[in-house]
Amino acid sequence: MNKGRLEAFSDGVIAIIITIMVLQLAVPKEPTLAALVPMVPIFLGYLLSFVYVAIYWNNHHHLLTVCGNASGGVLWANMHLLFWMSLIPFVTAWMGNNPSAPIPTALYGVILLLTAVAYEILQIRIVAVHPDKSRIRSALGRDFKGRFSPVFYFAAIVLAFVSPVISHVLYAAVALLWIVPDRRLEQLYQKDAS
Amino acid sequence: MNKGRLEAFSDGVIAIIITIMVLQLAVPKEPTLAALVPMVPIFLGYLLSFVYVAIYWNNHHHLLTVCGNASGGVLWANMHLLFWMSLIPFVTAWMGNNPSAPIPTALYGVILLLTAVAYEILQIRIVAVHPDKSRIRSALGRDFKGRFSPVFYFAAIVLAFVSPVISHVLYAAVALLWIVPDRRLEQLYQKDAS
Amino acid sequence: MNKGRLEAFSDGVIAIIITIMVLQLAVPKEPTLAALVPMVPIFLGYLLSFVYVAIYWNNHHHLLTVCGNASGGVLWANMHLLFWMSLIPFVTAWMGNNPSAPIPTALYGVILLLTAVAYEILQIRIVAVHPDKSRIRSALGRDFKGRFSPVFYFAAIVLAFVSPVISHVLYAAVALLWIVPDRRLEQLYQKDAS
Amino acid sequence: MNKGRLEAFSDGVIAIIITIMVLQLAVPKEPTLAALVPMVPIFLGYLLSFVYVAIYWNNHHHLLTVCGNASGGVLWANMHLLFWMSLIPFVTAWMGNNPSAPIPTALYGVILLLTAVAYEILQIRIVAVHPDKSRIRSALGRDFKGRFSPVFYFAAIVLAFVSPVISHVLYAAVALLWIVPDRRLEQLYQKDAS
Repeated sequence: MNKGRLEAFSDGVIAIIITIMVLQLAVPKEPTLAALVPMVPIFLGYLLSFVYVAIYWNNHHHLLTVCGNASGGVLWANMHLLFWMSLIPFVTAWMGNNPSAPIPTALYGVILLLTAVAYEILQIRIVAVHPDKSRIRSALGRDFKGRFSPVFYFAAIVLAFVSPVISHVLYAAVALLWIVPDRRLEQLYQKDAS
Repeated sequence: MNKGRLEAFSDGVIAIIITIMVLQLAVPKEPTLAALVPMVPIFLGYLLSFVYVAIYWNNHHHLLTVCGNASGGVLWANMHLLFWMSLIPFVTAWMGNNPSAPIPTALYGVILLLTAVAYEILQIRIVAVHPDKSRIRSALGRDFKGRFSPVFYFAAIVLAFVSPVISHVLYAAVALLWIVPDRRLEQLYQKDAS
Repeated sequence: MNKGRLEAFSDGVIAIIITIMVLQLAVPKEPTLAALVPMVPIFLGYLLSFVYVAIYWNNHHHLLTVCGNASGGVLWANMHLLFWMSLIPFVTAWMGNNPSAPIPTALYGVILLLTAVAYEILQIRIVAVHPDKSRIRSALGRDFKGRFSPVFYFAAIVLAFVSPVISHVLYAAVALLWIVPDRRLEQLYQKDAS
Repeated sequence: MNKGRLEAFSDGVIAIIITIMVLQLAVPKEPTLAALVPMVPIFLGYLLSFVYVAIYWNNHHHLLTVCGNASGGVLWANMHLLFWMSLIPFVTAWMGNNPSAPIPTALYGVILLLTAVAYEILQIRIVAVHPDKSRIRSALGRDFKGRFSPVFYFAAIVLAFVSPVISHVLYAAVALLWIVPDRRLEQLYQKDAS
């Protein structure tokens, strides 16, 4: 399996996911500032999901860079990741339309959690077919953010039933944590390139 | 005709097909778990079609890899395949909205059948222009899955009028059969590469 | 201006145009065969426009192959072509919803005509910056299809006010004429490659 | 960070932004010329935004050409630019539906202004990591259009509350100003290539 085409296909799907979310920002009927007020939570949800999809695109890029060859297992692990990511626009719209309701806020976390699990599985698959397992594994071993994010998502899912605002803060906090790029893989890549 | 651009264009169309299906998951009005219950068949239909489109992308990739040069015939056979694939989101939404109705379930199978026929035509066209016909033909000769899938689709179309559930099981069974990647072409490709 | 990125961007836009048209096939509410009957003209319009966009993608590919370097003029001539092409989904839906009305049928022809004119302008721009004008011009000189298509579109626009069916037949006839790939440019390209 | 994949991803997102805007041209119910009349401002808004997105694609292309290596800072500056660009279809539809209302016309300018600021930030980031800062900075130093556009956007935002027509003229004037390609960077690129 050619890695380049897997990368190009994933890029296409991620580019579409990040862009079609904006179609769910329904154009207000009234041309007034007041008509924009109920859109504020929808807009903030869009911003949050835009950042999450951008983070996944960035991390996915680095992960595939260290991927030697894309086996059938890697291909399906990648499709599995794209499947859960493709549901982000749906849960973003539902949470944005109902910012104070626990169920949509919790479901948003469920999709983030399943996406994170799918990413972890993809990482494991790529390590498994990598010719130099020990080297890539030691680099990934210090994967604090990858290990802790699911804990935060799980907490946010549970706490949505106490107060959705706590969950929103947690989702935003994890996103901020991830905006710092994954230097571990970047360093490994630069070693590979040199 | 440059094969690379045909591949890139097909990738773009397939990436859009697999992603816009999610736009047909209408966001529920009520922020409750109960509002998600009627979405279960729609979600399962989305999952099924996501897997089918992913399978076609994967097989299409392998098929084009052994394609020497893309003639006008190959180009139009490819467009024909993309045309039927582009109708998958439409029939997925109709079947998902009416899971217990025979007509939408049968039409889903009709589109899968026409897509499979279009794929077969593309394969024949690519073999026809391949410089080493006998070698690629012997590899494709053992194409059990490709030969049997249309039989299953046809059975599912007919049985939809007995019980749509039987058809759903058949559609899922064929998808599961295909998730195992097409090792024949993969092997040939690896021989080509070496 | 790098030709490759212009090609990739055009491919992306054309892939989206050809695929989002399917979003305008509204899923019928009733799960019956009768509910599909009013969709027949919409489906045929979708098929017609799919073929037209595929033809433009194919011809555009060949044209850019002989394009030496993409100047600012070529870039904007290309954007101008993509602009009119981007309106094809809109007029396809309007004509498909009103198959027996003259205005939507005529407007479909107007957009096809403007797209054809935009393609002609792009061709002229590409010839103008080509290092070997005489050679590419002699190849393009025998451009019968390119010269006659606008005449047919113009006839179809006028005849839509007599009977839209005549226009539909003309649109389909021109599409069939174009499915035969543009061998002139293909031959020139093969000479370039050899 | 590989520059090629950043470019491909940006191209994908920009191609989707420029194309999905057409989905907001709602197909008229009546098949008459009169039904097209209220669409004229919507169509003109679509044309204006199509030109703006095309200009950004073109300038973005030239800017990335002189970009030596894409650091994490460049990546996020690029995502920030794509985020504001992704809101162009939303404000285009709102302004097009309410051409004589000051708020939507002003918001259109706000998004253009934020997009311009995001582009400026991306330019600063790219200069910061460029190995030959003085050379690229001297080329960008004569960036009159980049400096003056925000002033025009700001004026258009304020004047929308006097008369939206003045703002529309200003938006169109800036777009016309930009259609002339950014020769400074093009020249630098050609020097790099030679």
